[in-house]
Amino acid sequence: MTESSIHPVILCGGSGTRLWPRSRAVRPKPFLPLVGELTLFEQTVARCARDAGFAAPIVVTGTAHLAHVEQQLSGDTEARVIVEPSARNTAAAIALAALRLPADAVMLVCPSDHHIADSAAFQTAARAAASLARQGWLVSFGIEATGPATGFGYLQQGAAINGGGYQVARFVEKPDRARAEQFLAAGGYAWNGGIFAFRAGTFLDELAVHRPQIAAHARAAVAKGREQGAEFHPDAAEFAQIDGESVDYAVMENTAHAAMVRADMGWSDIGNWEALHTARGGDKLGNFVIGPAELVNCRNVLVESDGPRVSVIGLDDVVVVVDGNEVLVTTRAGAQLVGKLGGAANQ
Amino acid sequence: MTESSIHPVILCGGSGTRLWPRSRAVRPKPFLPLVGELTLFEQTVARCARDAGFAAPIVVTGTAHLAHVEQQLSGDTEARVIVEPSARNTAAAIALAALRLPADAVMLVCPSDHHIADSAAFQTAARAAASLARQGWLVSFGIEATGPATGFGYLQQGAAINGGGYQVARFVEKPDRARAEQFLAAGGYAWNGGIFAFRAGTFLDELAVHRPQIAAHARAAVAKGREQGAEFHPDAAEFAQIDGESVDYAVMENTAHAAMVRADMGWSDIGNWEALHTARGGDKLGNFVIGPAELVNCRNVLVESDGPRVSVIGLDDVVVVVDGNEVLVTTRAGAQLVGKLGGAANQ
Repeated sequence: MTESSIHPVILCGGSGTRLWPRSRAVRPKPFLPLVGELTLFEQTVARCARDAGFAAPIVVTGTAHLAHVEQQLSGDTEARVIVEPSARNTAAAIALAALRLPADAVMLVCPSDHHIADSAAFQTAARAAASLARQGWLVSFGIEATGPATGFGYLQQGAAINGGGYQVARFVEKPDRARAEQFLAAGGYAWNGGIFAFRAGTFLDELAVHRPQIAAHARAAVAKGREQGAEFHPDAAEFAQIDGESVDYAVMENTAHAAMVRADMGWSDIGNWEALHTARGGDKLGNFVIGPAELVNCRNVLVESDGPRVSVIGLDDVVVVVDGNEVLVTTRAGAQLVGKLGGAANQ
Repeated sequence: MTESSIHPVILCGGSGTRLWPRSRAVRPKPFLPLVGELTLFEQTVARCARDAGFAAPIVVTGTAHLAHVEQQLSGDTEARVIVEPSARNTAAAIALAALRLPADAVMLVCPSDHHIADSAAFQTAARAAASLARQGWLVSFGIEATGPATGFGYLQQGAAINGGGYQVARFVEKPDRARAEQFLAAGGYAWNGGIFAFRAGTFLDELAVHRPQIAAHARAAVAKGREQGAEFHPDAAEFAQIDGESVDYAVMENTAHAAMVRADMGWSDIGNWEALHTARGGDKLGNFVIGPAELVNCRNVLVESDGPRVSVIGLDDVVVVVDGNEVLVTTRAGAQLVGKLGGAANQ
């Protein structure tokens, strides 16, 4: 680790019900090889390689995912794992990691269930963000919007900052379609990708100002916590008292020091089967197949089977997933409803 | 059996690949409960009930289907089974049955893989056809056309015959869509449903005139055949020499004594998944489900699963079938291509 190292803080939280039935409670989204041969978690770790100037990763996860995390860290003896005693959203998770680092360490907070096609662009943006973080900014990655998406928050770009970024003029909640199209046409807006850089001390200071309850209990949970090999276990009773809140609501939207770097890096949150199909690409007809399948007169069809042969005739823009005792057939447009299906809700 | 009995001759031939993967070589279409709780074969037998004036059935089938036939005859001790040593199409199959009956017996030839919703209408038509058969006519059932179907041959109705039927003016091969619409608009045309009535002797006489090769070898195959309980096994070497041909081509289109009765009886050949869905009906949205399933924003969707749960979102007019190690997803319009799929072709 050098003085200028960036400390990756990898968050392994949610269950990814919108990728059901492939993603299940016992086999959640970050730990599946959804795009390529590595899992999304493994790709996240690999993007923050030590030879690219990153320190060893700190993974924040819950007991439910711990076995997956430790297996997929593949014997990285420098990696550290913070095991949340309960789920209290991202502000608290990041606070735990910040409290385990020196105050002047620059953290790079990365979700573990996104896909980034261009690792070099990610690393360039990370270095720019770290540079701003060292100046005291709390930095969001502003993902170049490739369409009028309504599933993400947006960052409105403000004044340029010496050193390569911008102030954030405004955080915008998920817009409707018309507003998203306005943002795209206007320029100066970017998707909020949930990737952040800041000094550990800066983050904790801002958290103490804007959410003292979270800051105090997180600090106490760490103070009363215990180490167990590479794992750190915060105190459960203290941590349980935290009012869970996202880092966006708790800190980023309140701080006067919000900055952003722009990142055009083939990012996707793999938020549903349609997004996964887009990230995977397709053949000349837009079809993409995993497992045994025969497609006749099909376009933009995604088939994924863990065993049975899937035969599809005459369909466009559909997704067919066969996984164990579940079969999902949905239009691409309907993919956003998958998380609400009975099977996904009652795993 | 009374003098006026009608002898049902039930043909159990084809494999029904267009209903793959539910219908398979080892579990063919006639022996599946596709509409209601009885199989199509069981329904065919039940329609020709003895208390409605029918004699015990004669079933003509091959060795591949024999076990299914005997199981689904459910201990009918009067039923007889003719076991074809090889498949030689319908003219030969019917000849075998005719040769096992008295010359003046009226035969009613019934495919075993069709569905008829209105049994009473079927029986009324059968009695009318038998009445014409006793006058020496070879009688086809003219199914009331409910749409401009292109998958069936048509019968053009000719002059009325004393006793309730018509001469057949012309047999028409499967028409294209435009001609089918003309037929429907013109009236006087009906679908050729493959159901026939004639005296055994009349049929054999006509066969001898128009296809002496089939008639001679069938007669020899029966003469050299052997009985085994309720089964009759024609001689394999004689039967193998027959040039297989359909009864339509071999006899019906050539005889000067072709007649027809009109039958409006909710008939379907269950020729593919679309036809099966139509025969089954649906709920208010046109959906029909067998097995565990959840449908969201779907119309006219047919789901059939032998186990796995099927979740469908946002689709109209599709069929989803899960059967063993095969999953089929097709548009209703694409259903006609199912038989050409690799899975269906290489069972």
